[in-house]
Amino acid sequence: MNRQKIADIIDRQSHTDRIGTAYDWFMVLAILVSLLPLMFMKPHKVFWYTELGSALVFIIDYLLRWGTADIRHNNRKTAFLTYPFSFMAIIDLLSILPAVTLLNPALKLFRFVRLLRLMRVLKMFGISSKMRLFLSILRKERQVLSSVLVLALLYIFATALILFNVEPHVNPYTGQQTFHSFFDALYWATVTLTTVGYGDMCPVTDVGRFVSMLSSLFGIAVIALPSGVITACYLDELRKRRGR
Amino acid sequence: MNRQKIADIIDRQSHTDRIGTAYDWFMVLAILVSLLPLMFMKPHKVFWYTELGSALVFIIDYLLRWGTADIRHNNRKTAFLTYPFSFMAIIDLLSILPAVTLLNPALKLFRFVRLLRLMRVLKMFGISSKMRLFLSILRKERQVLSSVLVLALLYIFATALILFNVEPHVNPYTGQQTFHSFFDALYWATVTLTTVGYGDMCPVTDVGRFVSMLSSLFGIAVIALPSGVITACYLDELRKRRGR
Amino acid sequence: MNRQKIADIIDRQSHTDRIGTAYDWFMVLAILVSLLPLMFMKPHKVFWYTELGSALVFIIDYLLRWGTADIRHNNRKTAFLTYPFSFMAIIDLLSILPAVTLLNPALKLFRFVRLLRLMRVLKMFGISSKMRLFLSILRKERQVLSSVLVLALLYIFATALILFNVEPHVNPYTGQQTFHSFFDALYWATVTLTTVGYGDMCPVTDVGRFVSMLSSLFGIAVIALPSGVITACYLDELRKRRGR
Amino acid sequence: MNRQKIADIIDRQSHTDRIGTAYDWFMVLAILVSLLPLMFMKPHKVFWYTELGSALVFIIDYLLRWGTADIRHNNRKTAFLTYPFSFMAIIDLLSILPAVTLLNPALKLFRFVRLLRLMRVLKMFGISSKMRLFLSILRKERQVLSSVLVLALLYIFATALILFNVEPHVNPYTGQQTFHSFFDALYWATVTLTTVGYGDMCPVTDVGRFVSMLSSLFGIAVIALPSGVITACYLDELRKRRGR
Repeated sequence: MNRQKIADIIDRQSHTDRIGTAYDWFMVLAILVSLLPLMFMKPHKVFWYTELGSALVFIIDYLLRWGTADIRHNNRKTAFLTYPFSFMAIIDLLSILPAVTLLNPALKLFRFVRLLRLMRVLKMFGISSKMRLFLSILRKERQVLSSVLVLALLYIFATALILFNVEPHVNPYTGQQTFHSFFDALYWATVTLTTVGYGDMCPVTDVGRFVSMLSSLFGIAVIALPSGVITACYLDELRKRRGR
Repeated sequence: MNRQKIADIIDRQSHTDRIGTAYDWFMVLAILVSLLPLMFMKPHKVFWYTELGSALVFIIDYLLRWGTADIRHNNRKTAFLTYPFSFMAIIDLLSILPAVTLLNPALKLFRFVRLLRLMRVLKMFGISSKMRLFLSILRKERQVLSSVLVLALLYIFATALILFNVEPHVNPYTGQQTFHSFFDALYWATVTLTTVGYGDMCPVTDVGRFVSMLSSLFGIAVIALPSGVITACYLDELRKRRGR
Repeated sequence: MNRQKIADIIDRQSHTDRIGTAYDWFMVLAILVSLLPLMFMKPHKVFWYTELGSALVFIIDYLLRWGTADIRHNNRKTAFLTYPFSFMAIIDLLSILPAVTLLNPALKLFRFVRLLRLMRVLKMFGISSKMRLFLSILRKERQVLSSVLVLALLYIFATALILFNVEPHVNPYTGQQTFHSFFDALYWATVTLTTVGYGDMCPVTDVGRFVSMLSSLFGIAVIALPSGVITACYLDELRKRRGR
Repeated sequence: MNRQKIADIIDRQSHTDRIGTAYDWFMVLAILVSLLPLMFMKPHKVFWYTELGSALVFIIDYLLRWGTADIRHNNRKTAFLTYPFSFMAIIDLLSILPAVTLLNPALKLFRFVRLLRLMRVLKMFGISSKMRLFLSILRKERQVLSSVLVLALLYIFATALILFNVEPHVNPYTGQQTFHSFFDALYWATVTLTTVGYGDMCPVTDVGRFVSMLSSLFGIAVIALPSGVITACYLDELRKRRGR
């Protein structure tokens, strides 16, 4: 098996490449296995082996990618030097790290870096190409959409400030503390505006309830405006492609 | 009453057929009656009779459909042999089963199969023809919509992983256990992203709350993107039909 | 003041009619005052007077409308006979009833009929003419929209049936009873599908949580589909009017 | 530094003006610092200094704006007299007030006026120009949108009235009081219609639950209608601009 073939498998271009597809699915499996210890409450003996196995797969994948870096980047020989400093290569390296320090539980949270490897999955399912359409819409309408976002954030900030000063910090009915800091008020204001409404913090004063009512009504506009902009732009895009 | 007439009643084609419509409504009633034991907490004597009655109706319906299978499938005589293995025929048979074992409560949950009979109701109200329009839109935009779905699922997975490791598994304020497994975290992440927000699990740490805030804001995009795609496509469809 | 003038004031046609507008606002006030006893927990002495006052206004309004019935209905003399049996006249009469029996608290709930008088308010603000546009859209797309509604209702029914049989009827964490009847399950299923999510009933089993997750994701489609249909149809309507 | 230059910095017209941009960001910082005491639960010694500092910045800003009033308003000399009575000038003056009375905590809530200064931030980010597009849409469709709003408010009023009289004022399961006044019922009805659903007030009677179910289903229409109107109008606007 020559290096060209390995490069083709790793950077699968078409959907008909069976070995490339199998390799991609195998990597998805390795990522899921490597995240297993994060999905259970108590450490388990078997995780030592899953960690070792997934780490080995990641190391081999890293070496294969490094070894074919020149082929995958237009045969530039300098790719061997620049590849380890590319964004994805650093992520790959960081995702191996927690396995090296198996005995040190402090590095447990470092495993979250492996979530970033899921970006490869996006590419695999051909989603990255579809997302480019959405990203082009977002870019074209970035001024309008960012205006809505800044407005929403300013509104959340103002609402949080009012609620934080108007509402009692201890719920008089349940005796539980609601606010611990201004950040909690921001959390509340966001949860209300987006119509999630957990209910762990509820307004108990009349002013607070009035502000919440305004927020929830305003929240409809916050959903309607970006929906409208995205719809209009997507429809436009559909027409253009047909016009060609 | 000859077999052709029975086939017409069972497979009613037009809205003007009165006997066919009556037969359809009668079947809806039989399905509802057969589901009655699932709608009450305690077993009741009367359910023995409803079970018997609905089972009899289902058996007769099954036999009538089998007996007219050739007429309803372009007069192919082989339809008598293939019909019992068709999807709807198997469902019909399974929905009779729980009645046969009236004395065995273990088969109680088997009654859920009868819910699938409601698909006949869809056909009856002419909904299946309207749904075909939506399904054609979904098929046409399946790549974009499935991309949004995979993205949403990956986002739910990543959020759940972070929340599961960041949040305490026992709510410090109420003393109740929140997470029992990673599945609970997935449930929480879904409930937040879709802006349902039950409130049985609430973030209590600052990191968890920040992740929830991002989720709820991102949830607006998850609602806006498919809405936009469906709207644009539906509008397109409307124009085309007029163009004809 | 002749009868023609009274008819003009009661059935105000233009926004420039000052006395007609004043009369409309006065009636809104009378409706609000007549609903006052429903807005307070404890009966109050003053309500005796508000009840009397609003009832008098309603009686006079009723008599004025009856007395000018012929003028307001193309000078048909028979209008005097048919008017008391028209829908709005019956509502007007029913809204006077609770005042007649001031001493009987059993008729308190009869006051809700007065809410129907708010329909006059819709006409007053010119909303009824705007609603006609929406109603024409709803009528034009009634087959598609009713299909979505029936689908949603069938989905709520199926979800409720599953949750009712899978979930324990007493919350194991809080010890509170959740379900009292199948109706409660229907309530829960609706609250989940529409992404309200009160949290008074929460799934505690894995199957129940999985069903809730599916419901909340499906809920996005239930919001997106009618939004799309209404948007497409409204846009179409806008174009047509411009084309004229 | 002459007065013309100061006027240019304060009323920055282009994005290339570096000193003007720096001045804007400095003012945003000053507003945030001036709001600091509202973001903490307990008074702190350091707030005395932040209050003094931000007040000084506001005073200088106020004087600079007053001193260049003629230049910024077409060289009208009378601008010196009229400027202090303009809307923004009054807001600026009111936002200085709380600092003057540092020792009087009763004026603490007066600091909320400073939130209005955030309107300057909107202008700074160029949002006010983007908002004008949305406002023109809202103005064009104001009759339709206000009709939806009035309908929603009437619906909230009617729902609140029914719930207030049907539901018990003390939750029979938790023993907590739910309603204290009719305003609480209005709050509940709004929270349900907008699909926020905190869960601090939940229907416990069958009638109340039925009303809530209707509300949550109706809430979808309340989201879908304005979304549709805004989308259709925005799309129209996009076409027009291209047509030019």
